[in-house]
Amino acid sequence: MIDAISFGNNKLRYLDQRFLPLQENYVETADYLQAIEAIKTLAVRGAPLIGVAAGYTVVLAVQCFDGEKDSFKAYFDKIIAEVEASRPTAVNLFFATAKMNEVVAKRFAESSMAELKEHILNEAICIHNEEIANCENMARHGVALIQKDLGHILEKRKLNVLTHCNTGTLATGGLGTALGVIKQAYKDGLIEKVYTSESRPLLQGLRLTAWELEKEGIPFFSHADSSSGILMQRGMVDFGIVGADRIAANGDTANKIGTFNHAVLCHEHGLPFYIAAPISTVDITIPDGTYIPIEERNADELRAIHGTKVATDTTPVVNFAFDMTPAKYINGIITDKAALTGDYVKALKEVVPAAAASDKGLSSVC
Amino acid sequence: MIDAISFGNNKLRYLDQRFLPLQENYVETADYLQAIEAIKTLAVRGAPLIGVAAGYTVVLAVQCFDGEKDSFKAYFDKIIAEVEASRPTAVNLFFATAKMNEVVAKRFAESSMAELKEHILNEAICIHNEEIANCENMARHGVALIQKDLGHILEKRKLNVLTHCNTGTLATGGLGTALGVIKQAYKDGLIEKVYTSESRPLLQGLRLTAWELEKEGIPFFSHADSSSGILMQRGMVDFGIVGADRIAANGDTANKIGTFNHAVLCHEHGLPFYIAAPISTVDITIPDGTYIPIEERNADELRAIHGTKVATDTTPVVNFAFDMTPAKYINGIITDKAALTGDYVKALKEVVPAAAASDKGLSSVC
Repeated sequence: MIDAISFGNNKLRYLDQRFLPLQENYVETADYLQAIEAIKTLAVRGAPLIGVAAGYTVVLAVQCFDGEKDSFKAYFDKIIAEVEASRPTAVNLFFATAKMNEVVAKRFAESSMAELKEHILNEAICIHNEEIANCENMARHGVALIQKDLGHILEKRKLNVLTHCNTGTLATGGLGTALGVIKQAYKDGLIEKVYTSESRPLLQGLRLTAWELEKEGIPFFSHADSSSGILMQRGMVDFGIVGADRIAANGDTANKIGTFNHAVLCHEHGLPFYIAAPISTVDITIPDGTYIPIEERNADELRAIHGTKVATDTTPVVNFAFDMTPAKYINGIITDKAALTGDYVKALKEVVPAAAASDKGLSSVC
Repeated sequence: MIDAISFGNNKLRYLDQRFLPLQENYVETADYLQAIEAIKTLAVRGAPLIGVAAGYTVVLAVQCFDGEKDSFKAYFDKIIAEVEASRPTAVNLFFATAKMNEVVAKRFAESSMAELKEHILNEAICIHNEEIANCENMARHGVALIQKDLGHILEKRKLNVLTHCNTGTLATGGLGTALGVIKQAYKDGLIEKVYTSESRPLLQGLRLTAWELEKEGIPFFSHADSSSGILMQRGMVDFGIVGADRIAANGDTANKIGTFNHAVLCHEHGLPFYIAAPISTVDITIPDGTYIPIEERNADELRAIHGTKVATDTTPVVNFAFDMTPAKYINGIITDKAALTGDYVKALKEVVPAAAASDKGLSSVC
C-alpha cells in the first residue's frame, strides 16, 4: 500500500507529491505550520487527501498547545482559520475543519485538556478511516457494476480500462475513487491493463497515476489526452472510469478537464463510461451541470511545463480546470453507498442524505 | 507575410522553427549540408515545407558544382541521395527530388552547365510557387464552403474556429492549408477568433500556430487539447478545420494525433468539421482509413517536454503520432482543386489525377 499520508508518534508523515515520479520525498513533521505549507504548495493534493491532511494538521497544532483550558478555544479558532486559509477553494478541507469544530463544541465542557486532545486526534483518524472505508465501498460497488455490464467480454478475456487524472491513494489517502475501483478490479482478475491519459496541463495522469500503478504492479500505458480516440477506435479500451469534483442532482458531473472528451468518445464507441466518487461529492441542490461554476486557472499552467517555458508570456490561453459531462454520457455513478444507474435523479435522491444538500463551492484541487 | 523559407542571392534563408515562439532565428546559408542539417534536425518541418526546402537544398549543392558537365550526373545522384536520406519518411521530400531528377533527365543533353543550373533553380522555385498557389486555392475554396455551410450564423455574427497542430506558413511555405483557409476567412471578415489546441506531445499548436496568428494579428486562444469539448459545449466554437497527412479514397483522413477526438466532438455538437489539404495528400489506391499505417513515435516525446523530464525513463507510453478520422465525421475536404462534400469516393475520383494513384508512405513530418 502506498503511504500518501499517515500519523504516528505525534507526527504527520506525508509524501511530497510535487517531485513525483522523479523523486519520492517523504516528510515527517510535528510542526503544524509545515503541514499547512504542504497543503498550500500542493505537496499534498487531491480533494479527499486535503481533508485528511487538514484533520491531522489541526491535531499537530492542538498537540503543542500548553496553555490553560480556558484559553484553548481562542487558540483553536485561530488554528482553524489558518488551516482553512491554506487552500480556500478545497471543500474537503472545510468538511474536515467543520468536524473538528463539532468535536470541540461537543466535548469541551466534559473533557480535560488531555482528553480533548485525544478526542481531536480520534476525529482526525476517523476522517482518514472514513476516506479509506469510502474507497473500499466504491471499489466493491464498482467491481460489481463492471462484472454486470461487461460480463460478456469477461467470459472471454480480461478488460482494458482508460482513466484520467489521479484518483488514487495520492488523492484520497485510501485505495482511491476511480483508481480504487481499477485496483480492486485488477486484484479480482478483471483487468488486463490501464491506459492513463497524461492530463494536461498538470500531468497528474502521467506523473501520479502512472507512479501509483507502477508501485501496485498493475500493467499500464500513459498517453497524450488526445489519443483516447484512437485507442477506442482500435479496440484497445473496453471502458472508461474517472472521478468527480461535483455531481449535480441529475448526474451531470464536473471533473478534471478532458473528462467530457473521453466520455463523448466512449459513448461514440459504445463503451461504458463510469464516475466513481463519494456521496459527499453530490450536490443535490444543483439541478444540473449548467449550474456548476467551472474554474479557469492561470494561463501559465499551459505556457510553461515544470518551469520550462514553451510559449511566450503573452500567448493568450483559455485554461478551464474542469469540464462538465452531461449524465447522458455516464453509464454509472459508483458511490460509497451504491453503484447508481438509470434514472440518476431518483437514484441520487435515495442515497444522498438530506444534510448533504448544502452550499458547496467547486474544489479547485488538482 | 511570415518568411518561413526563401531563396535569393544564391542563398537559402529559413526560420529555425525549433526555438519558436521564444526565439526567431533566421538562418542564411549557401551550404547545402547545412540545409540538409536543418531538415534533419526539424529546424525546418511541415510536410510541404520540407519539399520546398529539399528543392532549394539541391539548388545549393548544384550551385557549387564546378566540375565538367560529364561528371555532373554522378555528383547530382549523390546529392539527391543525401537529400533523400535527411528525412526518409517525408513523402514531400521525395516528390521534390523526383521533380529535380526529371528536370535534369529532360534538360541535360540540350543545356550547358550554366543553363542546367538555371533549370534546376527554376524547378525549385516552381515547387515553392506551386505550394503557394495550392494554399491560395484551398483558401478560396474553403472560404466559399464556410460561407455556404455557416451563412446562417454569418448573417448575425462572425465565427469562432478550432484548429489543431500547425498547418500554416511554417508548414507549407505558403499561406497554409487549414490555417491558410482561416487566414483568408479572417481577412474576408468571417472569423472572430481562433482556438488553437496545443497539440501534445510536440505542442505545434501552442508554439507555432499561436506564433503565426500573433504575427498575422488574428485574435486567438491556445488551450489544452482536452478542452475542445467544453469549448464546443459552451458555444465558443462554430466549426473545426485541420490539415491532413493522408486521405484515403473514401475520405477517411489520417492527421496529427487528436484530430479524431476533435472531429467526434464537433459531430456530437452538430458543428462542421473540415479537412484542408492539397490533392497530393489523397492516396486513391487506399480504399479506406484502416489501410493507413499509423506511426508510433518515441516514448520520450511524452516523458519529457522541451528537455524537461516529467516522467521516469521507464514509464510505459503509447505515442501514436497520427490518428484516423472516418469520413462520416468530415463535413468537407477542401483541396486546391475544389471543396468536396457528400460522396467522397465519387468526388475524390473526379479531382485526383490518375498519376497520383501511386504508393505513398505516411509522412511522419511533425
